[in-house]
Amino acid sequence: MYTVCVRDHLMIAHSFRGEVFGPAQRLHGATYVVDLELRRPELDADGLVVDIGLAGTALAEVLSELNYRNLDDLDGFSGKNTTTEFLARVVFERMSRGIAAGHLGETARGLTALRVTLHESHLAWASYEGALPTSARA
Amino acid sequence: MYTVCVRDHLMIAHSFRGEVFGPAQRLHGATYVVDLELRRPELDADGLVVDIGLAGTALAEVLSELNYRNLDDLDGFSGKNTTTEFLARVVFERMSRGIAAGHLGETARGLTALRVTLHESHLAWASYEGALPTSARA
Amino acid sequence: MYTVCVRDHLMIAHSFRGEVFGPAQRLHGATYVVDLELRRPELDADGLVVDIGLAGTALAEVLSELNYRNLDDLDGFSGKNTTTEFLARVVFERMSRGIAAGHLGETARGLTALRVTLHESHLAWASYEGALPTSARA
Amino acid sequence: MYTVCVRDHLMIAHSFRGEVFGPAQRLHGATYVVDLELRRPELDADGLVVDIGLAGTALAEVLSELNYRNLDDLDGFSGKNTTTEFLARVVFERMSRGIAAGHLGETARGLTALRVTLHESHLAWASYEGALPTSARA
Amino acid sequence: MYTVCVRDHLMIAHSFRGEVFGPAQRLHGATYVVDLELRRPELDADGLVVDIGLAGTALAEVLSELNYRNLDDLDGFSGKNTTTEFLARVVFERMSRGIAAGHLGETARGLTALRVTLHESHLAWASYEGALPTSARA
Amino acid sequence: MYTVCVRDHLMIAHSFRGEVFGPAQRLHGATYVVDLELRRPELDADGLVVDIGLAGTALAEVLSELNYRNLDDLDGFSGKNTTTEFLARVVFERMSRGIAAGHLGETARGLTALRVTLHESHLAWASYEGALPTSARA
Repeated sequence: MYTVCVRDHLMIAHSFRGEVFGPAQRLHGATYVVDLELRRPELDADGLVVDIGLAGTALAEVLSELNYRNLDDLDGFSGKNTTTEFLARVVFERMSRGIAAGHLGETARGLTALRVTLHESHLAWASYEGALPTSARA
Repeated sequence: MYTVCVRDHLMIAHSFRGEVFGPAQRLHGATYVVDLELRRPELDADGLVVDIGLAGTALAEVLSELNYRNLDDLDGFSGKNTTTEFLARVVFERMSRGIAAGHLGETARGLTALRVTLHESHLAWASYEGALPTSARA
Repeated sequence: MYTVCVRDHLMIAHSFRGEVFGPAQRLHGATYVVDLELRRPELDADGLVVDIGLAGTALAEVLSELNYRNLDDLDGFSGKNTTTEFLARVVFERMSRGIAAGHLGETARGLTALRVTLHESHLAWASYEGALPTSARA
Repeated sequence: MYTVCVRDHLMIAHSFRGEVFGPAQRLHGATYVVDLELRRPELDADGLVVDIGLAGTALAEVLSELNYRNLDDLDGFSGKNTTTEFLARVVFERMSRGIAAGHLGETARGLTALRVTLHESHLAWASYEGALPTSARA
Repeated sequence: MYTVCVRDHLMIAHSFRGEVFGPAQRLHGATYVVDLELRRPELDADGLVVDIGLAGTALAEVLSELNYRNLDDLDGFSGKNTTTEFLARVVFERMSRGIAAGHLGETARGLTALRVTLHESHLAWASYEGALPTSARA
Repeated sequence: MYTVCVRDHLMIAHSFRGEVFGPAQRLHGATYVVDLELRRPELDADGLVVDIGLAGTALAEVLSELNYRNLDDLDGFSGKNTTTEFLARVVFERMSRGIAAGHLGETARGLTALRVTLHESHLAWASYEGALPTSARA
């Protein structure tokens, strides 16, 4: 299995609800350094997993919807705790849809799985990984 | 699949037995930077893989049994080479028992797998990963 | 010249005022990984630059005043842009006062300079460095 | 499952063919920081995944065939784009053959899988992973 | 003294002349991860060392003159060994001229020194640092 | 000013004497990742700060005197606390003597300063830096 990974980052504000979060219930923020891993069993005709330029651009677009925002104010996250693991899945789902929509090019039809990792500090990270829906590979 | 990782470290002395170890047969030591990855397929009601505070505390407690020790003197390791990979499994087993004992809270019942990685230098690391025994998820 | 460095981090929300900041004028946030460097020309009687335990505790206390906060709401920062470089100096000043007040122990009287670096992402950091006021070394 | 990883690097020149590569169609180069992960379900009698010294030497030998070369001039790569993912597989295949030939010692017969990761910058990496052919474990 | 650092990278081919270089006399290449540090004693009216967006753009422009090139073919480097330390100075000089020409904005007039570091692998880096010519601060 | 840095590491056991060290008074150990920085104002005729191959070999030789040792048993350290900062100076002094003795070649006569940094974990490091004695540059 081949994997290619590209890195970007985003900077957001948010707060959490629930005793378990302690002081993180207050409005605070985070830098998330984001690793997007794209997987497929065979390379395309150019010898690539994916056009890394398109992958980086598509990731940047997904992150720009969240970047420099207070996530507490975004409609889609109402009533949700935007934990690092939750956000990893959000980026996973949006990248999956982008691949299905052809944003990473025709060659990206061969991708079979993704992993999205958000590093929140030098001490902690969270990720979400899964197979791409077959519709993305139609 | 979701993963959350927390990082800590320990500093120990030890020696190895066997020709294959060369100069590492002498008493020496190591800093191990330890990454504990915790996995589960769905988030809990708070949007978490695990209470990261409890996970960090439980990891620190497991490491404190080894930290600032000469491992050659510890009863449990008698006749064993405490290699990096061996120690990764030791931490894995002790964390598994801690999860089963409820040290990471009720929500940790949903954890299905762990990975423990020990970085011994900028050039080498070792890890042990496996499913959690079903008893931990009873 | 000897230097010892200890690392910690903080997670805050804030916003900036001024055209130059573009989208960062919106409320957002950051994780700052903080490196505190402490310098002196000679070691103390124990062979140390400073008691690293006390240094880490004092740094954590300084950071706790800012951690999990919206900096826009803190009195001391009213009318200020809490940029990475600005915050590096804030931590520098508070650590300097802590050293003068003896929070790092008597041995810390030998410290002659500090540097505080805040890493805001994998792509950017800022620092402030300077001599300790002689009163700290009285 | 146990994993041990050793790190090395190589520095090469090459060029790519195909519109997708943009300016990378010109002759340029890269430093690849190479991580070789070796996996097996149980440790050997010494408590090891593999003799890390032999693993490092074998990896260095494989890399030396490519290091300080213009890959465009090497016979084996004629008509191929030597992308990061392509090169990860090249190193994987050569390490697999070396293990089958006994270059990592008898104990390496217990290895069941490898992963080779090439980091091309602070922003991107690619890897190839797979099971070792059963002949390597005969 | 304040410092702000921004990071970028470039990928080049080159060869060296001289016995001291051994196999690096052959055409090969490198990824250089580039850190640009900008220094000044006081912040500007916005609380900044420099407009980090302009600094990043100016650095990218300087690197684009070298990126995806065989340095052996560039006129300016004829008869020179384009070692890591040599290239660090090249980037330093070009950034200095860009600052003098106003590419980093009026506020950059307050910058008093630069440091440029090129990381060539996980094992080695080189840098060039110096005061900015007073003409840059006129 | 130019700087070149090479990295290596060592793994040792030791213990400390003094209340300030707490549990580190017990026999334990550390991995030190060692950065050796070499400085000079002008490059040599080859465009180098120093022959990086000779620098790496000389550093490895200095570290080999300590590597895989219990420092408590070494004559030179009798009655000393071999703290990270103390060891940074030990490596500095031995490298300085090696440069004066010509171990880094004739070109190394142009070196004017060194810095030695020992990283003991992901959270702490110590360094010693200073000018080279003029005898090294005779």
